[in-house]
Amino acid sequence: MKESLWNAILSVRENAPLVHNITNYVVMNTTANALLAVGASPIMAHAHKEVEDMVAICGASVINIGTLDDYWVESMLKAAAKAHELGKPWILDPVGAGATAYRDAVAAKLLAYKPTVIRGNASEIMALAKLGAYTTKGVDSVHQSSEAIDAAKWLNENTGSVVCISGATDVVVSGNKQIHIYNGHPLMQKVTGLGCTASALVAAFAANATDKLYGTASAMALLGIAGELSEKISNGPGSLQLNILDKLFNITQEEFFTNLRIDSQHV
Amino acid sequence: MKESLWNAILSVRENAPLVHNITNYVVMNTTANALLAVGASPIMAHAHKEVEDMVAICGASVINIGTLDDYWVESMLKAAAKAHELGKPWILDPVGAGATAYRDAVAAKLLAYKPTVIRGNASEIMALAKLGAYTTKGVDSVHQSSEAIDAAKWLNENTGSVVCISGATDVVVSGNKQIHIYNGHPLMQKVTGLGCTASALVAAFAANATDKLYGTASAMALLGIAGELSEKISNGPGSLQLNILDKLFNITQEEFFTNLRIDSQHV
Amino acid sequence: MKESLWNAILSVRENAPLVHNITNYVVMNTTANALLAVGASPIMAHAHKEVEDMVAICGASVINIGTLDDYWVESMLKAAAKAHELGKPWILDPVGAGATAYRDAVAAKLLAYKPTVIRGNASEIMALAKLGAYTTKGVDSVHQSSEAIDAAKWLNENTGSVVCISGATDVVVSGNKQIHIYNGHPLMQKVTGLGCTASALVAAFAANATDKLYGTASAMALLGIAGELSEKISNGPGSLQLNILDKLFNITQEEFFTNLRIDSQHV
Repeated sequence: MKESLWNAILSVRENAPLVHNITNYVVMNTTANALLAVGASPIMAHAHKEVEDMVAICGASVINIGTLDDYWVESMLKAAAKAHELGKPWILDPVGAGATAYRDAVAAKLLAYKPTVIRGNASEIMALAKLGAYTTKGVDSVHQSSEAIDAAKWLNENTGSVVCISGATDVVVSGNKQIHIYNGHPLMQKVTGLGCTASALVAAFAANATDKLYGTASAMALLGIAGELSEKISNGPGSLQLNILDKLFNITQEEFFTNLRIDSQHV
Repeated sequence: MKESLWNAILSVRENAPLVHNITNYVVMNTTANALLAVGASPIMAHAHKEVEDMVAICGASVINIGTLDDYWVESMLKAAAKAHELGKPWILDPVGAGATAYRDAVAAKLLAYKPTVIRGNASEIMALAKLGAYTTKGVDSVHQSSEAIDAAKWLNENTGSVVCISGATDVVVSGNKQIHIYNGHPLMQKVTGLGCTASALVAAFAANATDKLYGTASAMALLGIAGELSEKISNGPGSLQLNILDKLFNITQEEFFTNLRIDSQHV
Repeated sequence: MKESLWNAILSVRENAPLVHNITNYVVMNTTANALLAVGASPIMAHAHKEVEDMVAICGASVINIGTLDDYWVESMLKAAAKAHELGKPWILDPVGAGATAYRDAVAAKLLAYKPTVIRGNASEIMALAKLGAYTTKGVDSVHQSSEAIDAAKWLNENTGSVVCISGATDVVVSGNKQIHIYNGHPLMQKVTGLGCTASALVAAFAANATDKLYGTASAMALLGIAGELSEKISNGPGSLQLNILDKLFNITQEEFFTNLRIDSQHV
């Protein structure tokens, strides 16, 4: 598996996929820089009069609901519908799902366009699944992780989406396969929007890879390893943010192979 | 006073208050990162359909008019009204007050919801006061600082807001108390949005502190000291911006006590 | 020429021109920081109710269509019309011109207000010219650079705008003069929005200089040299982004003169 994950990284560098982003204001700069660092080309566009054209010319789209409002929601729905119609990969990042009724209503409409990949934290993935017919078995904090995996499986079965739960361990679910990625560092939680960065990288890899499960795992492992290695030379979250961009750009095969901690399960 | 200011910092780290931000596009990334660095949790949300829900679930809100437009102004008014109704702390950052008639009209409407704290530079604080019945005694550049303090007192008496004038010396006014903070470095003026960062930190501290005067002073002192210490290891404003984030995260009690330059006056 | 370019840099530092920006969400923070670093004062404002007031109080405006939508396009048109009416310098950055019909329609409307300077990459400058009566002689990738210069000349003749094509070599065209600037480093392409930064710096220099050709060349040379020098101490695009801000702030006359690679042609 190591080789196929590394090959996905090389392939993004070689093919420079164009990635369309409808994302939140907080992370636009970091997202664009992260996409450039891995070799992709970012486009940010949301105008109703051009968003479908942008979906059509890009290799994949990311829809991130972080700072949504009515105009932007309409942009998101147009983009998701167009990507669905054209069979283009699109990634849903359901930021803050579960926090307000409005976010949940928007997320439910987006889900109808069957995202290629959904990436969120455990609470967002559980909130999404609960928008459908999924019913929780009852959660306590100890079991939140396995509960989120159940929710991810339900989403995967009902939307066909590859589902990625990010956290201390990232879990990627598709059919009867699960990939667990143990890379990353807790200081990454002190940098805003690294989850959003993860979703954008997943889009770059989805634009480029036929196997969306491995593409997603490769993107998550790359970011986790970049975070781990960068933390060692950072004085805090400010320097970590930029060191991660440097490392996404200059990571070597040896660094990737030496630090990768991952396993794959059939369940 | 030193101990109570440091305790406010520790308390934010321990309680991780949720801070709701309606702020300008320029500073959203830096603001979110600064809030994370001091231990708070940022939420950026402005949709009319959820902004009141966000105010309700957060510990405090910041309203910053830097890149306002009609839609966002409506979001700001909804948020301020809700915070006022619920008795939640909210902070007004009147960016550019006095520059255009539109900004002044918006600021006047927001003031009616009695911000918990108002933080601006001398010219913004004077512009705000002049929106009310406050009349200037005539200003020349030498006396602008004391003129701004008069304006701050007037605002404090008429809105009940703690008023913070930031500048080479930060002055925090509440009732018959004034706290003067002499920390900071001139290079901080070359980093965009550190005033906006100050307002966001004040919100985190207001969410958490019963005494809003001391909470505000603690936030301002923290940012000033972080700026001073960071400047010593920075080559210019680019590295200063990120070094401040690192220092907000890792400042020690010894660094805080050694560098704090502050006095408190009864007037 | 060296002396006049350096004097333009000194003059911006001394006069601190106020620069009004309607720009895209991705680059607002970097743009504001770059303007501060060279000594200018940035204002970001787009509300229909104040945008004309902002144009009137600033020394120059930048209009960058990167993340346009209907509301913002109306803001851009109001600002361009006001700048044109008042005879104030304004800079057009036609991000993504040629990518969608919507962008082209907006760019055509803006061109009618005769920008003082147009700055874009070769493909954007060619797309702009094709919106007019300019007809291409047929392009292959080898000749794209000279084709873009033809397009720039056509734009210059038909709008009166100084036209700057940025790329590995920056070319500034005005009347029968062309300035070629050979500074810069390929890693700069991996930092998002340095083209947008260039446009903002051109605005600061246009606010301040009577000769817009030399002002534009000075801004482009400054950014190119800052990029080259910063690359030497950067580990990747993350650190390059901030090192450029430091170098824009602290570049010396000796650094500028030693590294400047430029020539001027009459054609």
